[in-house]
Amino acid sequence: MTNVRKTIILASQSKDRKRLFSNARIPHIVIISKYEEKSQPTLSPKELALFHARGKLASAREIVESNKAVLIATEHYVIIAADTLVELEGEIIGKAKDRSHAIQILKKLMGKIHTLITGVVVYDSETNTSAERVDTTQVRFSSLSEQEIIDYVTNSDEYKWRAGSYSMFDRASVFIESVSGSPSNVIGIPMDFIFSQLKKFNINILEFL
Amino acid sequence: MTNVRKTIILASQSKDRKRLFSNARIPHIVIISKYEEKSQPTLSPKELALFHARGKLASAREIVESNKAVLIATEHYVIIAADTLVELEGEIIGKAKDRSHAIQILKKLMGKIHTLITGVVVYDSETNTSAERVDTTQVRFSSLSEQEIIDYVTNSDEYKWRAGSYSMFDRASVFIESVSGSPSNVIGIPMDFIFSQLKKFNINILEFL
Repeated sequence: MTNVRKTIILASQSKDRKRLFSNARIPHIVIISKYEEKSQPTLSPKELALFHARGKLASAREIVESNKAVLIATEHYVIIAADTLVELEGEIIGKAKDRSHAIQILKKLMGKIHTLITGVVVYDSETNTSAERVDTTQVRFSSLSEQEIIDYVTNSDEYKWRAGSYSMFDRASVFIESVSGSPSNVIGIPMDFIFSQLKKFNINILEFL
Repeated sequence: MTNVRKTIILASQSKDRKRLFSNARIPHIVIISKYEEKSQPTLSPKELALFHARGKLASAREIVESNKAVLIATEHYVIIAADTLVELEGEIIGKAKDRSHAIQILKKLMGKIHTLITGVVVYDSETNTSAERVDTTQVRFSSLSEQEIIDYVTNSDEYKWRAGSYSMFDRASVFIESVSGSPSNVIGIPMDFIFSQLKKFNINILEFL
């Protein structure tokens, strides 16, 4: 297989997803969708993650197809959108609104297992088809004291903009006891799914120099 | 707890361990020990990882205590040494000698679960005591074809110098299906152990700015 020239578009504001793509040396551009998350009380956590990922994808497609904000240099492209949320004992834990909210969230998560749920949608313009997946990973935190949580949130800004208010491969590594499932999914996108799905869309990540 | 001024010394050549420490913003210096790994056929994989970690620690202590190669600015210090190895179905998989050896190793690991075993020793000069731990994490690879393995090894140099010939948070993320255990242990050192052990030695990682 030789890579067809297709632009890979990551429809995400997440620095972590961008970092995963950059670390894997996947050439890509980033589009920030205009999708606004609204509460969907009838959906399960998994359905919700997929719902938001679809919304982000639709918005990103509109931006690309209207040719208003982005010029794609290749004939075809794929768009990848994802939404990650944290579930603890049946409850969805949102992103922290501020520092004291982050402290509250982390207090809830300490000494317990929570689940990272990511909905992913990949769209291919060549075949005009999409593929979807919901991936879950369990994460077990050790038990930090309240003062340690305050120190974590005060001395790093990792809690900002992240589901669960922590960053696994940054300072939060010191209170993560174990994970079970895809580790990249904890960061924001299951990279094994991205690989296998892009292969079906005729893009081989492993061939990129 | 206020951090006493103690120098943290990482006795390791591993760029991955240094990256974990840097990402967690742990101030440290690196010392490269002169320990040479010799085969120890009577030891189990776990015993072997600990044996080598002890050997690295002893060598690093000698370097520091002889005052020949390193000047420590603080009265006290801790030294951290670690050794990581890969076990597959009872067999220890060493580091790749070259590109074709890396391809052989990765072929063995594909579609299977292997175990990352890390032996860690932390020495504290203030109390003149050491603490040890062996941590294991299971990693499941998806099934890459031989050509895909060749592409991985040809188009990235991640296989070099690494137990198992891959780097979990770089391009290898695309063929890691799941892990079970400490994720930082897969990279080379279990950071939750480092945190809890340094706390006992009066260093609080979470207080560092």
